[in-house]
Amino acid sequence: MPTASTDRPAAPVAATAPARAVPASLDAVLAAVRPADAGAVEAARARVAQLTTPPGALAALADLACRLAGATGQCPPAVPAPVGLAVFAGDHGVHAQGVSPWPQEVTAQMVANLAAGGAVASVLARGLDAQVRVVDVGVATDLPVADGVLQRRVRPGTDDLTRGPAMSRDDAVAALEVGVETARALVEDGARLLVAGDMGIANTTASAALVAALTGASPEAVTGRGTGVDDATLQHKRAVVAAALAVNEPDRTDALGVLAALGGLEHAAVAGFLLAGAAAGVPVVLDGLIAASAALVAAGLAPGAVDSWVAGHRSAEPGAGVALEALGLRPVLDLDMRLGEGSGALLAVPVVQAAARVLAETATFADAGVSGSTA
Amino acid sequence: MPTASTDRPAAPVAATAPARAVPASLDAVLAAVRPADAGAVEAARARVAQLTTPPGALAALADLACRLAGATGQCPPAVPAPVGLAVFAGDHGVHAQGVSPWPQEVTAQMVANLAAGGAVASVLARGLDAQVRVVDVGVATDLPVADGVLQRRVRPGTDDLTRGPAMSRDDAVAALEVGVETARALVEDGARLLVAGDMGIANTTASAALVAALTGASPEAVTGRGTGVDDATLQHKRAVVAAALAVNEPDRTDALGVLAALGGLEHAAVAGFLLAGAAAGVPVVLDGLIAASAALVAAGLAPGAVDSWVAGHRSAEPGAGVALEALGLRPVLDLDMRLGEGSGALLAVPVVQAAARVLAETATFADAGVSGSTA
Repeated sequence: MPTASTDRPAAPVAATAPARAVPASLDAVLAAVRPADAGAVEAARARVAQLTTPPGALAALADLACRLAGATGQCPPAVPAPVGLAVFAGDHGVHAQGVSPWPQEVTAQMVANLAAGGAVASVLARGLDAQVRVVDVGVATDLPVADGVLQRRVRPGTDDLTRGPAMSRDDAVAALEVGVETARALVEDGARLLVAGDMGIANTTASAALVAALTGASPEAVTGRGTGVDDATLQHKRAVVAAALAVNEPDRTDALGVLAALGGLEHAAVAGFLLAGAAAGVPVVLDGLIAASAALVAAGLAPGAVDSWVAGHRSAEPGAGVALEALGLRPVLDLDMRLGEGSGALLAVPVVQAAARVLAETATFADAGVSGSTA
Repeated sequence: MPTASTDRPAAPVAATAPARAVPASLDAVLAAVRPADAGAVEAARARVAQLTTPPGALAALADLACRLAGATGQCPPAVPAPVGLAVFAGDHGVHAQGVSPWPQEVTAQMVANLAAGGAVASVLARGLDAQVRVVDVGVATDLPVADGVLQRRVRPGTDDLTRGPAMSRDDAVAALEVGVETARALVEDGARLLVAGDMGIANTTASAALVAALTGASPEAVTGRGTGVDDATLQHKRAVVAAALAVNEPDRTDALGVLAALGGLEHAAVAGFLLAGAAAGVPVVLDGLIAASAALVAAGLAPGAVDSWVAGHRSAEPGAGVALEALGLRPVLDLDMRLGEGSGALLAVPVVQAAARVLAETATFADAGVSGSTA
């Protein structure tokens, strides 16, 4: 039975994606962030129009390819690989308010599970040959087994955000710097597609507060069931978010202040990681609610950075959709997942890579001798 | 900087997915189709509940893993690979009614592009190390370059379905057998995940007629813009679908008769391919409207077969969503694509494979020493 060619045609694509070095400090990172390269995006749009497909048929896949062109300044963009996953872990003082049915020590236990390769994100990362960094940026309890965990604990969890700021601005900056440092190490080790993950019992409460503060949405619109709370706890969780906003009176034009008042240490680290990717010209795939809320913070610090991010999936948590809409990002996947760890983002990685491959390797009408439409 | 483990834990999973031989005739295929293995599905559900994730957090990804268990009878199911893509090409007599802005010879030109490795599906298949079979089951014009094309032309395109049946029942059976034969060859060559693709100018019109006839939906609800028709042509296309239904008076309880009256040769081949996968216990990923309409035909011939199929994406064509809903299938991706060739299905393949990997390799609460929820 004859078999179609699987030869790789000559394609005008760079073998590897470029990257700039991640600057040495948060301030330098913020200064280095650039919006999309307009010329590369325009070239990518023009190339999409020449591919042997009906106009518009590639839809969001073409948009993804153009986004990669803009983020990297390359057209066609190289397939973004290798993949580097960072999972930032932190605990939350608001856990004392009874917003989660899980004991706080699960954060540390899951950090150990991630480091040992047993968590869902570990499994998905292995399937992508991704490098994995598990970073303790603010776990409150001892880690039972800590091999493979990067120790960068700024403090052992945040304070209760219903009683005042979750942390100081200095602590928030220190945690942002942990995210920058982690991205720098991954890029230095060759990563050309970054994935931001998180672990932290009670962190959907902090995330909901961040999304409400930074978008103006109501606590009802952004607060969900997290790891699976019942109706009564959901009502309580909404009241906790409302109390956090009332007590801290966040100023949405002061993203760092909002982060310190309402965020977690892992939110800060994810925000730093996202900014560092943008500064390096390395695309970052966002996971669910925690990443999306951290992205709102990061976009507040450097608005052009959003052009370097791809939304991996739409979490089942309602705040994630609100945040992505505010950021203007369309998620690649919508599987109702709400796991965190970077899991939804890792699932989207092959689609992101395929978008680049399609733009680079698909034949043009002229190359293939295919007739055009009369429309 | 410490790095998390990427060792693969001992997992109780078979190295390769099983497959039964595809029977020698369509009748034997229909007799061999089985619904999901209930025991394997139950075991998969029980295993999902033990994984170190909050209950329900894996959502549709867990459903996918359970679906693979049911289709293969294996729990946990092996990662379904290698991938085998078949692209069936045919032409349509209804093209003469002016339902497409593309000349009919584009079918043959795109077959050559697929065979040469230049089409979007070729590019995506290469990224997955998939075997590719491009099958001429009913192209109307000469193929300019035919290396790598399997010649199984039952007839050079269908008749105009607005004037009577598109083909005879015998022709439909012959094209179904081409699909069966193609699946058999791919499975014999080792494929353990099949992908059904299509190429055929004007085939969205035939597909819309099939969906309307087999679901009872109106021509307005299932007819879309295909490769990009304007408003006037869309209105005309809907009238053509309505005329096809009025002229042929299809009986939805006679799936073969509906296929012969309204379908294309590639629809028949895709239906045979889907049935052969189900008979062999090899999951098949559906692409867009053409595959979904062919799946309605195949489900009419052997209802249990649907348990072996995964909907790769929701095409932008409205009939695709109607067909998937009737089949009870939730698409993995929703990127507004409407290209065909198997492209949307190929993009979903890594997510399908990841679902199996997660079920097999994620640590359980007991393994990882992670505390449970108090909920």
